[in-house]
Amino acid sequence: MNLEMRDVIYKQAKEWVLQAGNTIREKMHDRMEINTKSNPNDLVTTMDQNTENFFVSNIKKTYPDHFIISEEGYGDQLETLDGTVWIIDPIDGTMNFVHQKRNFAISVGIYHEGVGEIGFIYDVMADVLYSAKRNEGAFKNDDALPSLVNKKHLLESIVGLNHFWLCENRLVDEQVMQDFVRTIRGTRTYGSAALEFAYVAEGIMDGYLTMSLSPWDIAAGIVIVNEVGGVTTTIYGEEVNMLEKNSILTCNPAIKSAIVDDYMLKGKK
Amino acid sequence: MNLEMRDVIYKQAKEWVLQAGNTIREKMHDRMEINTKSNPNDLVTTMDQNTENFFVSNIKKTYPDHFIISEEGYGDQLETLDGTVWIIDPIDGTMNFVHQKRNFAISVGIYHEGVGEIGFIYDVMADVLYSAKRNEGAFKNDDALPSLVNKKHLLESIVGLNHFWLCENRLVDEQVMQDFVRTIRGTRTYGSAALEFAYVAEGIMDGYLTMSLSPWDIAAGIVIVNEVGGVTTTIYGEEVNMLEKNSILTCNPAIKSAIVDDYMLKGKK
Repeated sequence: MNLEMRDVIYKQAKEWVLQAGNTIREKMHDRMEINTKSNPNDLVTTMDQNTENFFVSNIKKTYPDHFIISEEGYGDQLETLDGTVWIIDPIDGTMNFVHQKRNFAISVGIYHEGVGEIGFIYDVMADVLYSAKRNEGAFKNDDALPSLVNKKHLLESIVGLNHFWLCENRLVDEQVMQDFVRTIRGTRTYGSAALEFAYVAEGIMDGYLTMSLSPWDIAAGIVIVNEVGGVTTTIYGEEVNMLEKNSILTCNPAIKSAIVDDYMLKGKK
Repeated sequence: MNLEMRDVIYKQAKEWVLQAGNTIREKMHDRMEINTKSNPNDLVTTMDQNTENFFVSNIKKTYPDHFIISEEGYGDQLETLDGTVWIIDPIDGTMNFVHQKRNFAISVGIYHEGVGEIGFIYDVMADVLYSAKRNEGAFKNDDALPSLVNKKHLLESIVGLNHFWLCENRLVDEQVMQDFVRTIRGTRTYGSAALEFAYVAEGIMDGYLTMSLSPWDIAAGIVIVNEVGGVTTTIYGEEVNMLEKNSILTCNPAIKSAIVDDYMLKGKK
């Protein structure tokens, strides 16, 4: 992607992200409709839909040749990542949005010919914007995020994961996950994949892993984590496919092989 | 406790809590010594010790007839809760303090003849003070916290708990805990018991439970949760003993019996 053009898109996308966040804050206490999707705990609100609509209509108007992958279905059905693709979660952490009225994020990743060029994760209620352009570093608001310290040991690591993966499930051996939890220093669960990527980028968690995420949950996070020297793969250490669901491990590179080789590959179902 | 005297103590304690928080923020990036206590993940820093010392020396000077129970050992060895007792965790969430440099709290509960009269939980880095006096409501900074909505169903609840209790352990049947996790809407883990109490009081989590906490982890939280109509007991629904370790359930009263009767009593070891 041409760097000059990328800067133009970055500025425009940032403006839209902040504007969408502002609208969410303003309308936060309005009555809203809450529905469920794949299961009773998979929530969606009119705010998710309106926010996605805002992005999609703006992108289609301003960049008619760009494509969109997005959570609530206003985007395109893509079979390739050719060209420029915006990958959008209008509200990542909808359960937090509904129950907590905070701890959710707008997540926007912009990919060009399959390469992540721009990422934004906006913690709307805290008004904290994590952002990155490929090869130009990652930022928390205006502060550059330092590189992850590459000497972390798994025993002293804090890792984000959902409790669900310690229960019997289709995707991973829960006994191996339990061994993993007993090995590391601590676990955290914040309820927003995008924010958990941002926390890995910030170094306040050393890793985050989960068994099934959609492209919009991770697109921005991958770009941002990359820029501080972090790595993102499937939990088996394979490349992520941005056109389908993946298991995800994003972490400080120092602990990646211990997590993949000593635990995840052993828990593979 | 005489209400006039309680107000005097409340104001004084609030001043000390804010002052201690200010000192922590100022010294946050100074070099500090980190040691371990009961196990390699049970951390303590000079900041914990200095902060506790600040409280203890001030209390002893100002209220020589009061008693102190505190985490780092500068307090008293008490066998009763007679008189006025300050129950203090200078830094609750030391792992967060060390690894995240945020998401920890100063927790101060003041009990008189065994009754919780005053509670402060100070989220130091966010500069958010949760506070309560018995029968006078709970506050988040200057805003009164509303009563918990008493119609919550367990299926739609978010509950805080540590992943550890889903692994084989001495204190609870992990299978029952796994069933519990699969029943509720969502789980969260924030790494500070005091803040998890505060979040229950705020209604952003519907409950928080854990198998073993010390008095200083819970003393302030109990007072604050009480004031919004929440309840705190052991996970078996029994009264908490503020002189020893307890299992803890703090929650919206609407979900208490479901948690205790349908899960915790069945998982009792």
